[in-house]
Amino acid sequence: MIPAILRKNITTRWSTTSRVRYLASVASPIKEAVTSSAFFPDEPTKPNVVTAIPGPASKKIMSRLDKYQDTRSIFFIADFAKSKGNYIVDADGNTLLDVFAQIASIPIGYNNPAFLALSQEPAFQTALANRAALGVNPNIDWVDSVEKAFMAVAPKGMTNVFTVMCGSCANENAFKTAFMYKAAKRRGDRDFNLEELNSCMKNEAPGSPDDMSILSFNQAFHGRLFGSLTATASKAIHKVDIPAFDWPKAPFPQLKYPLEDHKEHNKQVEQAALNQVEFMITTAKKPIAGVVIEPIQSEGGDNHASPEFFRGLQAICQKNDVLFIVDEVQTGVGATGTFWAHEAWQLPTPPDMVTFSKKFQAAGFFLSPRLRPAQAYRLYNTWMGDPVRAMQAAAIVQEIKDKQLLQNVQDVGSYLQENLTEMTKSAPIENIRGQGAFIAFDLPDGKKRDSFLMDMRQRGVNIGGCGDRTVRLRPMLTFQRHHADILLDTMKESFA
Amino acid sequence: MIPAILRKNITTRWSTTSRVRYLASVASPIKEAVTSSAFFPDEPTKPNVVTAIPGPASKKIMSRLDKYQDTRSIFFIADFAKSKGNYIVDADGNTLLDVFAQIASIPIGYNNPAFLALSQEPAFQTALANRAALGVNPNIDWVDSVEKAFMAVAPKGMTNVFTVMCGSCANENAFKTAFMYKAAKRRGDRDFNLEELNSCMKNEAPGSPDDMSILSFNQAFHGRLFGSLTATASKAIHKVDIPAFDWPKAPFPQLKYPLEDHKEHNKQVEQAALNQVEFMITTAKKPIAGVVIEPIQSEGGDNHASPEFFRGLQAICQKNDVLFIVDEVQTGVGATGTFWAHEAWQLPTPPDMVTFSKKFQAAGFFLSPRLRPAQAYRLYNTWMGDPVRAMQAAAIVQEIKDKQLLQNVQDVGSYLQENLTEMTKSAPIENIRGQGAFIAFDLPDGKKRDSFLMDMRQRGVNIGGCGDRTVRLRPMLTFQRHHADILLDTMKESFA
Repeated sequence: MIPAILRKNITTRWSTTSRVRYLASVASPIKEAVTSSAFFPDEPTKPNVVTAIPGPASKKIMSRLDKYQDTRSIFFIADFAKSKGNYIVDADGNTLLDVFAQIASIPIGYNNPAFLALSQEPAFQTALANRAALGVNPNIDWVDSVEKAFMAVAPKGMTNVFTVMCGSCANENAFKTAFMYKAAKRRGDRDFNLEELNSCMKNEAPGSPDDMSILSFNQAFHGRLFGSLTATASKAIHKVDIPAFDWPKAPFPQLKYPLEDHKEHNKQVEQAALNQVEFMITTAKKPIAGVVIEPIQSEGGDNHASPEFFRGLQAICQKNDVLFIVDEVQTGVGATGTFWAHEAWQLPTPPDMVTFSKKFQAAGFFLSPRLRPAQAYRLYNTWMGDPVRAMQAAAIVQEIKDKQLLQNVQDVGSYLQENLTEMTKSAPIENIRGQGAFIAFDLPDGKKRDSFLMDMRQRGVNIGGCGDRTVRLRPMLTFQRHHADILLDTMKESFA
Repeated sequence: MIPAILRKNITTRWSTTSRVRYLASVASPIKEAVTSSAFFPDEPTKPNVVTAIPGPASKKIMSRLDKYQDTRSIFFIADFAKSKGNYIVDADGNTLLDVFAQIASIPIGYNNPAFLALSQEPAFQTALANRAALGVNPNIDWVDSVEKAFMAVAPKGMTNVFTVMCGSCANENAFKTAFMYKAAKRRGDRDFNLEELNSCMKNEAPGSPDDMSILSFNQAFHGRLFGSLTATASKAIHKVDIPAFDWPKAPFPQLKYPLEDHKEHNKQVEQAALNQVEFMITTAKKPIAGVVIEPIQSEGGDNHASPEFFRGLQAICQKNDVLFIVDEVQTGVGATGTFWAHEAWQLPTPPDMVTFSKKFQAAGFFLSPRLRPAQAYRLYNTWMGDPVRAMQAAAIVQEIKDKQLLQNVQDVGSYLQENLTEMTKSAPIENIRGQGAFIAFDLPDGKKRDSFLMDMRQRGVNIGGCGDRTVRLRPMLTFQRHHADILLDTMKESFA
């Protein structure tokens, strides 16, 4: 590893990031102490691989499961009861350091004591045994969960939240909200007319408008249902054969990495992208109701853009009365070193909607109160989210605060970024980019990337890919320097 | 109540229904014993209303919650910890007999001991604390859940299941499967070509086909996301202002009730509807990939059709190579007296897909193995369902078996249907229709229906509406004759 004395102060890419408000009172300079004591005293100290992965026990289960479900995407069968902290144990007893974390879905480590303790609480068990239709009969403590899980970390000014069951549902309901808002504005003060109410029942205009759209970006991933898949453009295999709406895609700026070495070029590329977005918005045949964007395009290859780009994008949206929707399904909940990745942009006013899922366990979106539909039952469904997962979200918020996990992510993120940058001199990796511990790099091609991932898994480190030739690190918030050292050493062995 | 001696043998509407296979070994004639002993010895014996509903405590919480979420649809705030069996207790201490059951989502009663016991099991707590990405790292016991929850009740021949997070997700993934299957057939033996792969990334044909559709029915409800909302046509307020695909709606037969008094008329109406469906399928400008239908149109007003109609519909689909998708999100899991409502149709071959959610706690769809996409990652997402809810689904299957709940539903269903039929002579209710305990009736108009629902709630019975003027009964599977007597007596008092 690079001796501390030689380390430059790279830290996280956006060093002026604001803290989430609930952390303001406990924010403190990064202390070595944060990372020098392990969060999980009883987790394994290193990987231990005893079979090929997947091993015979995994394969046996996969073969049994394959009768019912497609198993071709399965890496290996987990034994979660034996997994701990940052380590996943598989059916064959292999112990892997996990920097993929169930596709970026595990926030605070396997079998975190806070989660296990929550499971014993009577209120939690009540929620489990009595699933509410939250739009009809929320439980007496639902409002507490809303405050502790969502309002505690709500982006400034976004005092409303609509909860649903998954990330795709979150994005689609945000899109619906944008369409309802835009249509209401266009309609002015009048109520729906009969033509609108009758035509929508036949999926016809004007009730089902065919002259509004959501603008998203090339390489974006926003989900796999019909509306969210329309906005997605990361891989053709996700989209081919599925009908889509005629919604446009703008170019996402294709920056050169490392960012600090290509500032002028990247600035020009971003300005060109913004110009194109503005041109598309102002000349669209179908008016754009909302623009949706990921802070870091994740499935699409971990593509970054600067805070200036996002501020410019918001300004264009505001100028043209287009809603600005930030998809934080993968970037949210601490992985970038702030609770929400978009905090790093220092927007002058909050986004219109921010969607979440994955690491938060609960899914949904924040919205400003002005976007709440004037009529009831328009943002609505049977469950409207899961109170059990909202209670877990509240526990995650508390754990992040108690353990200063954002500071940990900032610390380990900068440590990883600088060591990976150093590694580019001796290993075939390039284009190191990251925000906090949400880090990626490229290998020469997809084939080499896939071999690398397989080899790392066999050496005891579980990692995932994205884009065409990218490796994405998605460690949990409990990933520390001593884990980073194992990851880096194993990479060196793999490349050797 | 009608003395047993006078009761005609109405039983469930389709008396020749087959049992689900897992019940074959325990199936037995309906015994009085099934219903004469209570499933919950410690549940309240009758409703107890002490305040207006919603009462001051509910209103206080609603007012606090309304800062964050729209509360206009909320009936009252529940106190689930105090609720038991078929009775829901609210924040003000009111105890209501619940025949709405969280919009038909509670299967085996509030705080069922089987659910509470499950919460204590280590495997359950492991699943809670470690949320798997099921397409990457399912736990060693996931295959057991698949077998115990889903395969145990899989419609014959449907040996595959794809799990997701909600009913809308289930239907949309079924639609996607239909499109992928249809496109693959059209393509023949060849792989995707470059034109398809490139065009889909721009939401353009041929990769994003604009010449295929899903046919659904007027008054249908299949969900609220962009694809499922397109197939929905129950209420304009759900659809207005939201872009929809140009997919067609066929007329759902508008039958006269009671069914047994209008057999000839209804037969003609159904044949006309079938003729129209066949005409639409054979002349469609956009070929129909799948037909989706509910066994009983629920949100749309509890509209029934006969087994002959559904068999005819399947035959038309098969003749024209159109997939036949049965949406059992609301009708499934026992409410109609068989595990799946469509068992009553005695189809010569199984449907192509059957979707589920709500009472099953877990959501997804069954499919025949030939519909599994040839390529991996096409039916896929991060979570692919929730192992916790699948374990609950397995517990529900076991509880239905242990307590003979299907027999109970058949028994109490026929009891309710005949008593409601009798009540039409003295009360302003009409059009009694039902399958098992999935029962509805109409009031003269929507205003009277809404007043009736409010009045019943104030008298201690929680009921919901659907359609324009319909009251729908959605009791849990644990609803028994002594509960039915309270419901019927309260209705009489309300009408008096």
